[in-house]
Amino acid sequence: MSILVVGSVAFDTVSTPFGEVREALGGSATHFSVSASFWSPVRLVAVVGEDFTGAHRQPLLDRNVDIAGLTTAKGRTFRWSGVYGDDLNSARTLDTQLNVFADFKPEVPQAWRDTPLLFLANIDPELQWNVLEQVRGAKLVAADTMNYWIDSKPEALKKLLGRVDVLLINDGEIRQLTGERNLVRAVAAVRRLGPQAVVVKRGEHGVLVFQGTSAFALPAFPLESVMDPTGAGDAFAGGFLGYLASRGLDGERDFRRAAVVGSVMASYQVEDFSLDRLMRLTEPEIRDRYARFQELTRFSPLS
Amino acid sequence: MSILVVGSVAFDTVSTPFGEVREALGGSATHFSVSASFWSPVRLVAVVGEDFTGAHRQPLLDRNVDIAGLTTAKGRTFRWSGVYGDDLNSARTLDTQLNVFADFKPEVPQAWRDTPLLFLANIDPELQWNVLEQVRGAKLVAADTMNYWIDSKPEALKKLLGRVDVLLINDGEIRQLTGERNLVRAVAAVRRLGPQAVVVKRGEHGVLVFQGTSAFALPAFPLESVMDPTGAGDAFAGGFLGYLASRGLDGERDFRRAAVVGSVMASYQVEDFSLDRLMRLTEPEIRDRYARFQELTRFSPLS
Repeated sequence: MSILVVGSVAFDTVSTPFGEVREALGGSATHFSVSASFWSPVRLVAVVGEDFTGAHRQPLLDRNVDIAGLTTAKGRTFRWSGVYGDDLNSARTLDTQLNVFADFKPEVPQAWRDTPLLFLANIDPELQWNVLEQVRGAKLVAADTMNYWIDSKPEALKKLLGRVDVLLINDGEIRQLTGERNLVRAVAAVRRLGPQAVVVKRGEHGVLVFQGTSAFALPAFPLESVMDPTGAGDAFAGGFLGYLASRGLDGERDFRRAAVVGSVMASYQVEDFSLDRLMRLTEPEIRDRYARFQELTRFSPLS
Repeated sequence: MSILVVGSVAFDTVSTPFGEVREALGGSATHFSVSASFWSPVRLVAVVGEDFTGAHRQPLLDRNVDIAGLTTAKGRTFRWSGVYGDDLNSARTLDTQLNVFADFKPEVPQAWRDTPLLFLANIDPELQWNVLEQVRGAKLVAADTMNYWIDSKPEALKKLLGRVDVLLINDGEIRQLTGERNLVRAVAAVRRLGPQAVVVKRGEHGVLVFQGTSAFALPAFPLESVMDPTGAGDAFAGGFLGYLASRGLDGERDFRRAAVVGSVMASYQVEDFSLDRLMRLTEPEIRDRYARFQELTRFSPLS
C-alpha cells in the first residue's frame, strides 16, 4: 500500500560534538521517505529550488521514492542550520531560510489523490490542510507538527487535528499544545481534538503509543555513539507508517510492531549525518536490531 | 533471605502542586524498608532523635521491619524540606537539618553481621564504608548515592564502589560521576570502578539495567496522577532488592523481574504522600500492576 508524504526537502547545515555537514540533503519529507521506502512505496510532494540538482534527487531515486510530486520553483531550496551541544536531545537553530518554501502551494498529482495512507509531515498546518483536501481517498491520515506552529497557528492546527487519525508529536510539544504537564492527560486532551491514536516521541527516552484502550511504551535503543539526531523523528515516522502501510488497512492492529520498526529506523538514522546511515542500511541490519529490541525489553511473568 | 539497609530516617516537609505534608515520616531507609518488606525480611540500621515517638515507629513495625538497629540519639531527628514544581522530576530543597545524623556512627547488631544482602542507601560514603566493614557476611552489596556526595566526597565514593556489586543511581548522577554524557559509556565507566551491575533510574522515563552482557530497559508506568515523587527511587530499590532477596542467591538471574517489581513499587509510591500509598498497598494490586507492565511493553516478532 502506498504512502503519500508532504513536507520539507531541505539543505541542512548541522554541527554536533562529533562533526558537521554543510548543505547536506535533509528535510522532514526526505528523511521520512527514505525510511518509509524500506517498507512501502512512497510518493513525495514537496518543493525545491533551482539549486536542487540531479545529484540531490539521486538518493531518493535510489530508494525508489516516486518524486513526481517534487516541483522545482524559481529561487533557492529551503535551508536550515543548527547546532547540537553535549545534550543531543535538542538543536539550537542558527538560521532558517524558507526560500521557495515561502510560496509553496502543494499540488498533489491527480493520480495520487486516492493514496490510502497520507502523512502530513511538519509544515504549516494550513498547507497540511490544503493537501488533506486534495487527497480525498486517504483511508488513514497521520500528521506531525512542532512548537513553532503550536505557537503561531494554534487554530489552524486544531482544525487540522479534527481530521487526523494518528498524531506523531514529541513530549514537549504535546504539553505545549494541551497545557497539560502530565502525559497521560495531555494525550487524552489531544484525542478529544480528533486523533484516535497518539504517538509521543521522547527522543533518547523512547516512545509512547496510545491507540484505542491500549498503551504501549518502548524505550529507545541504548546507543554507545550518536553522531547526529537530525531526522530521527522523521525516520521514526517513516518506519512506523511504512510498516503500517505494508500490512494493509489491517495495519492498525500492528501499531506496536510499527513503533518498534520506527524506533529501529530512528536508531540507525542517528548513527551518522544526513541520510548517510539509512542509504547504506540493509534488511538483515533492520531485523537484527528489531531482535535486539526484543532482547532489551523482555521479562518473565511474576512467579 | 534477609536484607540489611542503612540509610536515613527523617521527617519530610514536602510541597507539590497537588498538596503538602509537614514532618511526615520519610528518609531513604524508611521508604526502602517499607517497599522491600513486601518481599523479604528487612533489618534497618539508622538513627533518630528523641522526638521520634512510638507512633513514628508503628508503620515500620506494621510492615514487620526489624528495627533493632534503629538507635535513638540525643537531639532531633533528621529533617528535610522540599518543593516540587509542575515538573515533578526534581525537587528544590528548602532546608536540610542533619540533627542526630551529623554524628551518626552506625553500629550493626552482632547478630546481623552475616546478613546476605546489604543495601547502602544514600548517605555519606564514609558511613556506607563503615557499615560495609561490619557486615562481613554479605554476599551481595548494593548501594545508592547522590550528587551531593559525588561532588563533596568523590574519592570515598570511588573507594566504596570498588566493593559494591550493584549500583543504583539516577541518570544525571551517573553522568556527573563519570563525566560521560552518553549513558552506555557512563555505565561502562562505572563498571570499571567495581560494580558488575548498574541500575540507572530515569524517573518518569523508567529504568535501565546493565548486568553481565545483558541490557534491560523498562519504561515507567504512565500514571494519570502523580501526587509526590519523594521516595520513588528508594521504593524502587526496595522492590528491586527485596525481590532479589526473595529468590535467594540465584536472584541475580532475576534482575529483569526485579526491575519490574521495583518499578511497580515506585509507581505506587508516587500516588500519595509519605508512606501513605505503600501502607495500604495489597498483593493483588502489586500483581495487577506487574501484569499491566507486561501489557504496556509487549510486542510481537517482526513478521
